[in-house]
Amino acid sequence: MKSIYLSEIIHELAAYSEKVKEADLQEMLAAIHKADIIFVAGAGRSGFVARAFANRLMHLGFHVYFVGEPTTTCIEENDLLILLSGSGNTASLVSMAEKAKSLKAHLATITIFPENKIGALADTIIALPGTSMKSQDGSQLTSIQMSGSLFEQLAWLVCDTLVLMLMNDTKQTSEDLFKRHANLE
Amino acid sequence: MKSIYLSEIIHELAAYSEKVKEADLQEMLAAIHKADIIFVAGAGRSGFVARAFANRLMHLGFHVYFVGEPTTTCIEENDLLILLSGSGNTASLVSMAEKAKSLKAHLATITIFPENKIGALADTIIALPGTSMKSQDGSQLTSIQMSGSLFEQLAWLVCDTLVLMLMNDTKQTSEDLFKRHANLE
Amino acid sequence: MKSIYLSEIIHELAAYSEKVKEADLQEMLAAIHKADIIFVAGAGRSGFVARAFANRLMHLGFHVYFVGEPTTTCIEENDLLILLSGSGNTASLVSMAEKAKSLKAHLATITIFPENKIGALADTIIALPGTSMKSQDGSQLTSIQMSGSLFEQLAWLVCDTLVLMLMNDTKQTSEDLFKRHANLE
Amino acid sequence: MKSIYLSEIIHELAAYSEKVKEADLQEMLAAIHKADIIFVAGAGRSGFVARAFANRLMHLGFHVYFVGEPTTTCIEENDLLILLSGSGNTASLVSMAEKAKSLKAHLATITIFPENKIGALADTIIALPGTSMKSQDGSQLTSIQMSGSLFEQLAWLVCDTLVLMLMNDTKQTSEDLFKRHANLE
Repeated sequence: MKSIYLSEIIHELAAYSEKVKEADLQEMLAAIHKADIIFVAGAGRSGFVARAFANRLMHLGFHVYFVGEPTTTCIEENDLLILLSGSGNTASLVSMAEKAKSLKAHLATITIFPENKIGALADTIIALPGTSMKSQDGSQLTSIQMSGSLFEQLAWLVCDTLVLMLMNDTKQTSEDLFKRHANLE
Repeated sequence: MKSIYLSEIIHELAAYSEKVKEADLQEMLAAIHKADIIFVAGAGRSGFVARAFANRLMHLGFHVYFVGEPTTTCIEENDLLILLSGSGNTASLVSMAEKAKSLKAHLATITIFPENKIGALADTIIALPGTSMKSQDGSQLTSIQMSGSLFEQLAWLVCDTLVLMLMNDTKQTSEDLFKRHANLE
Repeated sequence: MKSIYLSEIIHELAAYSEKVKEADLQEMLAAIHKADIIFVAGAGRSGFVARAFANRLMHLGFHVYFVGEPTTTCIEENDLLILLSGSGNTASLVSMAEKAKSLKAHLATITIFPENKIGALADTIIALPGTSMKSQDGSQLTSIQMSGSLFEQLAWLVCDTLVLMLMNDTKQTSEDLFKRHANLE
Repeated sequence: MKSIYLSEIIHELAAYSEKVKEADLQEMLAAIHKADIIFVAGAGRSGFVARAFANRLMHLGFHVYFVGEPTTTCIEENDLLILLSGSGNTASLVSMAEKAKSLKAHLATITIFPENKIGALADTIIALPGTSMKSQDGSQLTSIQMSGSLFEQLAWLVCDTLVLMLMNDTKQTSEDLFKRHANLE
């Protein structure tokens, strides 16, 4: 017997993902390709999604850091900061956004609320749908889950979508990425 | 315009998720409810999924640690160790599995390969499908993604499914969980 | 042959440590004993000192979290937040200090500059000497090291001093502490 | 009034540090200068010392990773792995040592027991004194602290000594190092 809750989660993801715009993803790709160094950050569960994305960017051969790690250096003018924040208002991330902009770095974010603090500062935004949106057929988007959960799930899938697009752009296979995979864990 | 890659990922998740057994999830729930303390571990990207799950178990009010954090204590006889490992052979996790069993703790795992080292030691297993399986209609399961990616995505969704089931079991709402959410980040 | 640099570092620590006040340490002990839950935080290298301290507080049997870990819960009124910050002005830590005070939690800090933002909010302060101070014999305190290094070293030793005092207070031996030591790493 | 426990800790560090050999430090410097990429690892409190060292190596301009971070890549033949382990037998670190040697990377360690598993595999060793040693005047070295504490303290100071030597070697000032300091925390 299969899980009804799991089916429902995937059903929700299918409905919400319809609202993710290919054009947003393309803009993020352009920002990634243009950056000297990429910094990725997020708090709580979004932070774990952000770390998983930083990991794959390393596998892809990009020069990338997760903010807060022991060997993370300083951000400068031609670098990119990608912030994952559902609310777009997380205090520690807003500070980072302000700092990055003050140094003329490029600021990108994945968020439900582009109108909030981080989005208002950002150069590039991937907007993810929230429960205030309507689905394809005009009905209200809903969720049986905690509000943050769907954002985190969809953010993980959107980041993995960006990885597939970047593999395609750079003509790299899974084998190419595995060559850079950590071998000391 | 919507993203073709994102649609394909969700299409894959829908097909693979059919193979996840409700009975496996129920056994994991029983192990979680029975444990004095829950320890969760994983390496690499599976480790980020594991941290996100540990976070929600804390929100639910369970006594839980992620292995390797500064305040994680020792595991003992009536505790539970949950290991997320696609391969079931990750060296550092196999060591943990052996240690936990030697102390008579309960060992659970989420893995693609129950027949490998960790699964062979485990008391409770949630088996996730791999590309060697056939789908509902008899066709081979395939993926456009790196082999690990689908495991990590599905593991995240399965853990969130367990969270929904645990909310139901303990009669807690999202508001109950939010009361325990970190407020210093 | 012994190392001249290492001898000089220890010589500096001996001179600076004369300025650490026993009364400050006693006040911190009182705050620790009184707290329901202890939260510890720090950024950069001070953050690693803070994690090492949180680890020993766990060994001692206190209910303790390092801020930012996956299983760290919310701070409340009768809890204690200990911030390690040389400058006393680190943005992310100032936010935590403000949040903790707004919830009427007890705020403690280990810092060189009690007059700065975190110190100004704190209920309990261990003031560590900086290079602006004079030593016992009236000469200026100096250092061959980067300004932060001496703070971090002395903070580590001061935290280990607190651990010895807490072992004494709670009549626990090394063996008692080792029983709580992580056994899954 | 000054702290008696703190004075005693510094007294112990002074006695133990006499046993650290300048020649060991010089060999570690040579290994660091020769390496393409430096990987640093440690478990528990030694792991926090190791992270603090990795942080300064980044400040110095070296290409360095802490093992287990999201953006840490794979180790290869001309790289260096530095393991901090008091006992020299920590399971997860022994696995890393074996893996590094199998790939012909250079293995270095800071340990009390060079004769144990990690030391037996290592190309370069900084041996720190333990309580089984005699001090300068022929009396037994002792400690009022938990056995690991003195190792961790001395390891932190030895790493900061290496930093001073590396600043000297590379003719860099504190200002040069601060330019690479994280500005997003």
